[in-house]
Amino acid sequence: MRGLPLHEKLAGLVRIGIALYSVRDLDELLEMIVEEAMDICGAEGGTLYLVRDSLLEFHITRNRRLEKAMGRERMSDFFEKLVIPISTTSMAGTCALTGKPMNIPDLYALPADFPFRHNPELDRRTGYRSVSQLTVPMQGRSGECVGVLQILNALDENGQPVAFVPDDEMLLSAFAAQAGVSIQNAQLDEKLRRSHQETLFRLSGAAEYRDKETSNHIRRMSHYARLIAAGMGLSRLEVANIYHAAPMHDVGKIGIPDRILHKPGPLTADERTVMESHCLIGARILEGSDVPVVHQASVLALTHHEKWDGTGYPQKLSGRRIPLEGRIAAVADVFDALSSRRCYKEAWPEDKVLEYLTDQKGKHFDPDLVDCFLGQFDEVRRIQATHQDTEEDFKKSEALSSHLSQDGVDQAA
Amino acid sequence: MRGLPLHEKLAGLVRIGIALYSVRDLDELLEMIVEEAMDICGAEGGTLYLVRDSLLEFHITRNRRLEKAMGRERMSDFFEKLVIPISTTSMAGTCALTGKPMNIPDLYALPADFPFRHNPELDRRTGYRSVSQLTVPMQGRSGECVGVLQILNALDENGQPVAFVPDDEMLLSAFAAQAGVSIQNAQLDEKLRRSHQETLFRLSGAAEYRDKETSNHIRRMSHYARLIAAGMGLSRLEVANIYHAAPMHDVGKIGIPDRILHKPGPLTADERTVMESHCLIGARILEGSDVPVVHQASVLALTHHEKWDGTGYPQKLSGRRIPLEGRIAAVADVFDALSSRRCYKEAWPEDKVLEYLTDQKGKHFDPDLVDCFLGQFDEVRRIQATHQDTEEDFKKSEALSSHLSQDGVDQAA
Repeated sequence: MRGLPLHEKLAGLVRIGIALYSVRDLDELLEMIVEEAMDICGAEGGTLYLVRDSLLEFHITRNRRLEKAMGRERMSDFFEKLVIPISTTSMAGTCALTGKPMNIPDLYALPADFPFRHNPELDRRTGYRSVSQLTVPMQGRSGECVGVLQILNALDENGQPVAFVPDDEMLLSAFAAQAGVSIQNAQLDEKLRRSHQETLFRLSGAAEYRDKETSNHIRRMSHYARLIAAGMGLSRLEVANIYHAAPMHDVGKIGIPDRILHKPGPLTADERTVMESHCLIGARILEGSDVPVVHQASVLALTHHEKWDGTGYPQKLSGRRIPLEGRIAAVADVFDALSSRRCYKEAWPEDKVLEYLTDQKGKHFDPDLVDCFLGQFDEVRRIQATHQDTEEDFKKSEALSSHLSQDGVDQAA
Repeated sequence: MRGLPLHEKLAGLVRIGIALYSVRDLDELLEMIVEEAMDICGAEGGTLYLVRDSLLEFHITRNRRLEKAMGRERMSDFFEKLVIPISTTSMAGTCALTGKPMNIPDLYALPADFPFRHNPELDRRTGYRSVSQLTVPMQGRSGECVGVLQILNALDENGQPVAFVPDDEMLLSAFAAQAGVSIQNAQLDEKLRRSHQETLFRLSGAAEYRDKETSNHIRRMSHYARLIAAGMGLSRLEVANIYHAAPMHDVGKIGIPDRILHKPGPLTADERTVMESHCLIGARILEGSDVPVVHQASVLALTHHEKWDGTGYPQKLSGRRIPLEGRIAAVADVFDALSSRRCYKEAWPEDKVLEYLTDQKGKHFDPDLVDCFLGQFDEVRRIQATHQDTEEDFKKSEALSSHLSQDGVDQAA
């Protein structure tokens, strides 16, 4: 926008504000903020820090010249994900501390009484020449600092670095105030989403008090389901819905009597029928909602035991007549059941589990979904590592299980 | 802002945008939008419509002169909550249809080829003289119309109504774009919150498959708890947290064996001890979370059976040593248990329930909370009416209950 009359720049700022507030994903938003900040002031580079635990955390850096010369990926390697204190030992730190913009015409000619020098190390390593720098704080709704925005090298019409002008300072400050509130909104959204998911995991995990599964099973299974949904190219919203609905797939087990749920030996045919009714009970608990996640959960509850070849239950659906979410849950649920230890069985070795999944392509499982899952196996291993069952989890699970089956024994006696 | 140079008006618009996006409550936001729209263009009145199901729904009207003359409340009575079609039969409808602003210098001198006339009825009844009117559409993030903003009578320096100028049109249109996205964000937030709460109710309501309570009990009880929390002057956030946490108070019942949970007769001392452990089990399911709602729910689960005089369980706490949320839940839970029918008992008559609550002030219940609850009894009745148990709910509950206790009989046989 450099070169436009002030009122057009301001009108531009209003438009940009609307665009910012339309983005609800934090990462996407941060990218947009740096990009727009550079555009507004005709800068060649930009960096964004966020406040976290009274520190400034480096998030994004852009530099058009370096990206062109070495590619964006390689360029990023030069910038460590560093964390700096909110203090007068750095430009960004000072700015976060004072809440005031800092406009430096030449980084290599800082006044003698300046509390710190520009570190030429990065310029030396990249061959770039940093000249002018404008740093502004981003404020939240109550004026608190949520981050710092820093742009580098205003370019004149010949592409030569010049100083930022007072108009740039005013515009970037106004933009930073918009950016600050939009970041705060996105962070709040993220917190709410996390809160929601945590509540779901807890409530669904309550099933571990009746079932021999740990709440980590539900977490892992939900992550696997999300992974497959994303890998199959579903929309962001669909992926999120499956992720949020997955923890509820076994909620119907709440309606299964203890004597069947906790029976140590194999079930009789009648008992198996009752056990299998957990799909219908779950669907009934969740059915008829106009909230997409709850509807999704009811479909999942109903169909996660169907099999691709039609030998599953309760409806004996086959192939693509099984809703996609049910087919996804089948892979995720069985994979986790086999690959993790339960209090009544050891975990299968990884190669045996993979062999089983592959063998069941077109029998139990939708072949495409198995391929999609196996194609992202690094991520699967990461999920396993993050949500590992501890020795304590087992003790808890075993104690509960014996508590409940003992009651059964008491009663029989 | 009328009379300021354009760039200052635009800078003002940027500031107003930031303020709008800081508000996450829809009602508060709509008030603010009308207020700011009037300020931006120096108008005396303003009206806001929202699109709903392909219609325009009237939401707010402001008129400084009439409010001064007759008070805001009485003035509102003149404006019905009307719903108008999105069509060329009205100014707002036309504007929503075409997506273009309409600037009318004099409502009583509409061009002869105009598709409709100004309705002088309201002016006649209120004694107000409508002159100039500026109507603009509010767009959402994809340009779709989310509502219409209409301002009335631009005032000159002598307070006389004059026409709106082209600058007003431009500024109000830019503002309406900001307003549209902020409304959409607030609506999305509301939808998400509703989705969370519905999920919570469903999952917590799953307990009805083990317990003899209906899921309406959980809804009513959560509403009562919210009512008391709000009445005691807790902050909006605290009230919301209690409302979201309340459905989970009985989650620990999942860990109680069927033979005790579904025993038809009175429990033995040992059985009662097991039954009462549902508070500890619930707390354990929910404990140790850094998510405020889940933490709140764990406190609620643990303490909702404590009594003010120290005769409750499991910790025999008394007075204010019982966390406030536990004391609130006690009133809400017992009131609903008494005042509603269960499959094993009839509902108590209202006067008997009120007598009991009053009698138990200082025994079972915190006296202040009982007073606060009874002081809002109209609202309590509204909640009862909205979440009434149907005959179907009982049949379901009875069928389940007999299904589970029959299994107990089978086993004993």
